[in-house]
Amino acid sequence: MRAEIISVGTELLLGQITDTNAPFLARLLASYGVDVRFKQTVGDNLERVRASVALALERADLVVTTGGLGPTEDDLTVEAVALAAGLPLVFDQGTADAIRRLFESRRRQAPESIFRQARIPQGATVIPNRRGTAPGLMVPVGDRTIFTFPGVPWELEGLVADGLEPWLAARAGGEVIRSRVLRIAGLGESVVEERVRDLLHGTNPTVAPLAKRGEVHLRITAKGAPGAVEPMLASLEAALRERLGDAVFGTDDQSLHEVTARLLIERRLTLAVAESCTAGLVASRLTEVPGSSAFLLVGYVAYSNEAKVRDLGVAPALIAAHGAVSAEVASAMAEGARVRAGADLGLSVTGIAGPTGGTPVKPVGLVYLGYSDAGGTRTEELRFGTEPGRDGVRHLAAQAAVNLLRVRLLRS
Amino acid sequence: MRAEIISVGTELLLGQITDTNAPFLARLLASYGVDVRFKQTVGDNLERVRASVALALERADLVVTTGGLGPTEDDLTVEAVALAAGLPLVFDQGTADAIRRLFESRRRQAPESIFRQARIPQGATVIPNRRGTAPGLMVPVGDRTIFTFPGVPWELEGLVADGLEPWLAARAGGEVIRSRVLRIAGLGESVVEERVRDLLHGTNPTVAPLAKRGEVHLRITAKGAPGAVEPMLASLEAALRERLGDAVFGTDDQSLHEVTARLLIERRLTLAVAESCTAGLVASRLTEVPGSSAFLLVGYVAYSNEAKVRDLGVAPALIAAHGAVSAEVASAMAEGARVRAGADLGLSVTGIAGPTGGTPVKPVGLVYLGYSDAGGTRTEELRFGTEPGRDGVRHLAAQAAVNLLRVRLLRS
Repeated sequence: MRAEIISVGTELLLGQITDTNAPFLARLLASYGVDVRFKQTVGDNLERVRASVALALERADLVVTTGGLGPTEDDLTVEAVALAAGLPLVFDQGTADAIRRLFESRRRQAPESIFRQARIPQGATVIPNRRGTAPGLMVPVGDRTIFTFPGVPWELEGLVADGLEPWLAARAGGEVIRSRVLRIAGLGESVVEERVRDLLHGTNPTVAPLAKRGEVHLRITAKGAPGAVEPMLASLEAALRERLGDAVFGTDDQSLHEVTARLLIERRLTLAVAESCTAGLVASRLTEVPGSSAFLLVGYVAYSNEAKVRDLGVAPALIAAHGAVSAEVASAMAEGARVRAGADLGLSVTGIAGPTGGTPVKPVGLVYLGYSDAGGTRTEELRFGTEPGRDGVRHLAAQAAVNLLRVRLLRS
Repeated sequence: MRAEIISVGTELLLGQITDTNAPFLARLLASYGVDVRFKQTVGDNLERVRASVALALERADLVVTTGGLGPTEDDLTVEAVALAAGLPLVFDQGTADAIRRLFESRRRQAPESIFRQARIPQGATVIPNRRGTAPGLMVPVGDRTIFTFPGVPWELEGLVADGLEPWLAARAGGEVIRSRVLRIAGLGESVVEERVRDLLHGTNPTVAPLAKRGEVHLRITAKGAPGAVEPMLASLEAALRERLGDAVFGTDDQSLHEVTARLLIERRLTLAVAESCTAGLVASRLTEVPGSSAFLLVGYVAYSNEAKVRDLGVAPALIAAHGAVSAEVASAMAEGARVRAGADLGLSVTGIAGPTGGTPVKPVGLVYLGYSDAGGTRTEELRFGTEPGRDGVRHLAAQAAVNLLRVRLLRS
């Protein structure tokens, strides 16, 4: 099967935004073995969008468009698709009702213009949008098929999962390509590569390392008959896990904080968090997981020294002797939060995110983590340097703190 | 003048890399008033690259290609351009000499294959590559012109500065395009459009709305003589601001939390934050800004009712009477955090992020914000519904809380 991707939007042709939808779609199509031969980008102009769709219909079996589905007059994709396909536009009552319900649930009046989004080419199938108003469409044109999606990535991704992926899966006869990502925290990319070097050179399945902020991913990819690929993935995964131990925290879309939150929920343990430089990042990540109120009792963003003393019971003399960024204060913060909240576990972060505020002895990027349970406290010193920037140091520190908690849970 | 951009590379069609060259070229062309109507992406295949270039020559005066100029056999752009233009390839001795010198200067032997890069379409002008081996080319084709550049961004940028920019400047006849984004919070896309509808239909300058999560952007674009475009932008910006008032929080790259943090720093006000459902998002966003320790004294992630009572002084009877998700508790949280920390201002969020935990009276997506200063407290009720998802509700709530703080600062 040949596919073509069309991104619609004058802002793309002006270079005002970078197109991330097309690479997302391209990767998805490639994973189903679909051959993408061309990608077009076209501005918000009816005749030009029509010409692009018509050209794509000439040379591809599957045409996927993103963008130009909004409620405004420069959103022309549906009209252009209908023209290119030679289909009249019809009003879809179901879509109009869904839009009206969405606005009602928000206690807002739906403006008349929004109902432009309820016009569809005759014969098209509507893919309801869980995340917005513009639906996706599947438009059959002879033996060709056009999918249209909005340009908002969050909405596009939901619609692709609901509409395009099942369609692709149904057509991916014979060989399939499947991949799985092993996610690793607490080890750098070069250490990971050292440990698994001899496994990196296979041809099927293959392993490809990728460094992410605060983690390393190993992508395993296998190609073969539907029944054969899973065992291939599983066997290579087992070999990699043997080398990497509990540094592998999860697979695919599992995030470190999700895995850690699940551990806390399963073990029915409660947690209090005390953060200085990360200022709520640890608490906000752990609570991304539904049900997190079962374990998170409280978080303290103890940004000032006064807050560390008043809310966490850190001794002023300790801060005076060692400084707020020290193993001693990290330990006292974790212990203080745990005891004050009556939690089973305490977790703390204190550090220098920068860009200013470092000294030769305590440079920007220096971070201390603290962990406390009934058995005592542990601390960890990290040095990220200036290179990740303020935002990078904060995110790396939050990731490391959650990983410390995870590893302590696994080993206790 | 009309232009078309062609990005060559199978890796782009597989989504393995994101194309940053095309947006770079698009911005440059736009700044010279050149109208880019289409952008194509095509894989490393001679016939398909030829077809793309031929199509572009039909509909544009200027065709700019990037990628496919390397020394390997899948680098086919020059050959494809020659075919599309109907020109024979000739060997360019000057380019061959330059490549040989580059290798000599690096004390390396030039491999024979590299001299593929010395073949050029007859009549083409070579743009020497200061940063690599593959030269850029300017190929006249009747009244059309093709520029070919390598895909390595660093090399591309050098060649564009040396070859394309002077060519554009000579032809620009003075006109430039400039744009500016107005960023709006606290109003939905349809409300923004209602208020500025009559200003959306100008042709120069133009205004284009774009909905983002928790904000709306209006992009103003003006075209004209260098001295004329700034006043055009400024006058339209003023007209839009008059309609939208302080809902416009910033321009271009300014984020809501950055603008709000700057207001706090300028006014030398201190803040205490009390968060329930956002669990640290508000504090972590405000502290993305360097120097935020000047205003943020403390944040409380008062996830449990016990924490709301113990750390924020919320009366248990208040929670019992109204529930933790209520205007009354939001107000008490903001006030409690402010008083406890001795801060000038208090800001709170309490809500139901979901996916579970809602009731008919207090559904998922219901959020209360609280604001407290020495003059009293204010609350705000928001209903996001279930559709944004847990993550969406949390981010929208955090954005709305920061916006409440910003608006109170502006109006006080």
